[in-house]
Amino acid sequence: MKKPKAVVLLSGGLDSTTTLAMAKALGYECHALTFRYGQRHEVELAAAQRVATQMGVAEHVIANIDLRIFGGSALTSDVAVPKNREMKDLGGGIPITYVPARNTVFLSFALAWAEVLEASDIFIGVNALDYSGYPDCRPEYIEAYQKMANLATRVGVEGTCNFKIHAPLMQMTKAQIIEEGLRLGVDYSETLSCYDPEADGHACGHCDACLLRQRGFKHLGLEDPAPYQSRIEVPA
Amino acid sequence: MKKPKAVVLLSGGLDSTTTLAMAKALGYECHALTFRYGQRHEVELAAAQRVATQMGVAEHVIANIDLRIFGGSALTSDVAVPKNREMKDLGGGIPITYVPARNTVFLSFALAWAEVLEASDIFIGVNALDYSGYPDCRPEYIEAYQKMANLATRVGVEGTCNFKIHAPLMQMTKAQIIEEGLRLGVDYSETLSCYDPEADGHACGHCDACLLRQRGFKHLGLEDPAPYQSRIEVPA
Repeated sequence: MKKPKAVVLLSGGLDSTTTLAMAKALGYECHALTFRYGQRHEVELAAAQRVATQMGVAEHVIANIDLRIFGGSALTSDVAVPKNREMKDLGGGIPITYVPARNTVFLSFALAWAEVLEASDIFIGVNALDYSGYPDCRPEYIEAYQKMANLATRVGVEGTCNFKIHAPLMQMTKAQIIEEGLRLGVDYSETLSCYDPEADGHACGHCDACLLRQRGFKHLGLEDPAPYQSRIEVPA
Repeated sequence: MKKPKAVVLLSGGLDSTTTLAMAKALGYECHALTFRYGQRHEVELAAAQRVATQMGVAEHVIANIDLRIFGGSALTSDVAVPKNREMKDLGGGIPITYVPARNTVFLSFALAWAEVLEASDIFIGVNALDYSGYPDCRPEYIEAYQKMANLATRVGVEGTCNFKIHAPLMQMTKAQIIEEGLRLGVDYSETLSCYDPEADGHACGHCDACLLRQRGFKHLGLEDPAPYQSRIEVPA
């Protein structure tokens, strides 16, 4: 039997890589989609390519979109990325690393591709627990997106299939995500989650993404295998 | 009093130009957004620039996004644009000129920009009557998009304002749109609606967009002032 196709958003970070592993384990033929969106951490594209190759996706597309024309985030402008924040602050409020409407833009490209591929499944690695306070990582957002997607498209009109936006990490802690990825054979040394990495691909070790990730590994009694520039002691 | 800001999607065609005139007339400071999305009709960008200048927008951004990486439409691939279709066929089924998820992608960029500008109003010139059968031109789609947008964004979480997606042409016939535009002083000789224009900016006169537009003018007893390569007799 032919595998059903899925479009998987892949940044090359811990969450999206785990999501890809989960989509693969569910039996989908995975079409990975990565964005060059003017992010300051372009080395994440190299991580996405390593992961896509290693995990044997059917196809990997890197789409060029320039979100810098609008500005408004530390990830796409010259505002400094916050470092060494207290764990208690990581879930509160919307941080400056929030990129306006980013997931909406990403999902829209995934939807366009899915429609061309005649795929009805889209995977995104958003997470509502450890998620750093982004509005477009909440379950009610994903649900509203899915509803819109089914009205937006050819298949929505013709009634031939229904788009499903899968967010399998939504209710998982970072430690649970890592545990599941390890079970599925993910090699986390190849992934890069950092908001402000070195040009050589080392993670900074101090931004919100690095701290959350290291804490997840520590909680499992493991050391994060990704290359770090330096580390601070994080609580489990 | 400071004018409220709005993001207006502007292709340089008849519908989006009229929408811009309507947003201006409603008192908005208009920020026009145009896409270079790999369309075969790149001369529409020149039309958008002429219109933006002539109508005195606060700002005009042309965003580069490459929808050709996915293919799937006559407007972004090598499939021929249908010509001289019967009027009765123009509203039935989804034509090959449909670009998968195009309005969803466009609105997502508009949403990103609106969030940065702290604007809560987005204008799009979609139309459900004369609309050529695109799924993403229906009122239920716009409504679902608006709901999603209010969950996707900073303001949606903070409750500081509500995004409104304005589709003022939704229930208007092409003739009514033209009538309203003329009342507001739109110079339609500067606009370009054609799916398959000549490199010099002449409209083909035979694609669905040309036919619908010419019929609208004819219905009002007027001749379409846009430059055409050739014309066929269209019924009013």
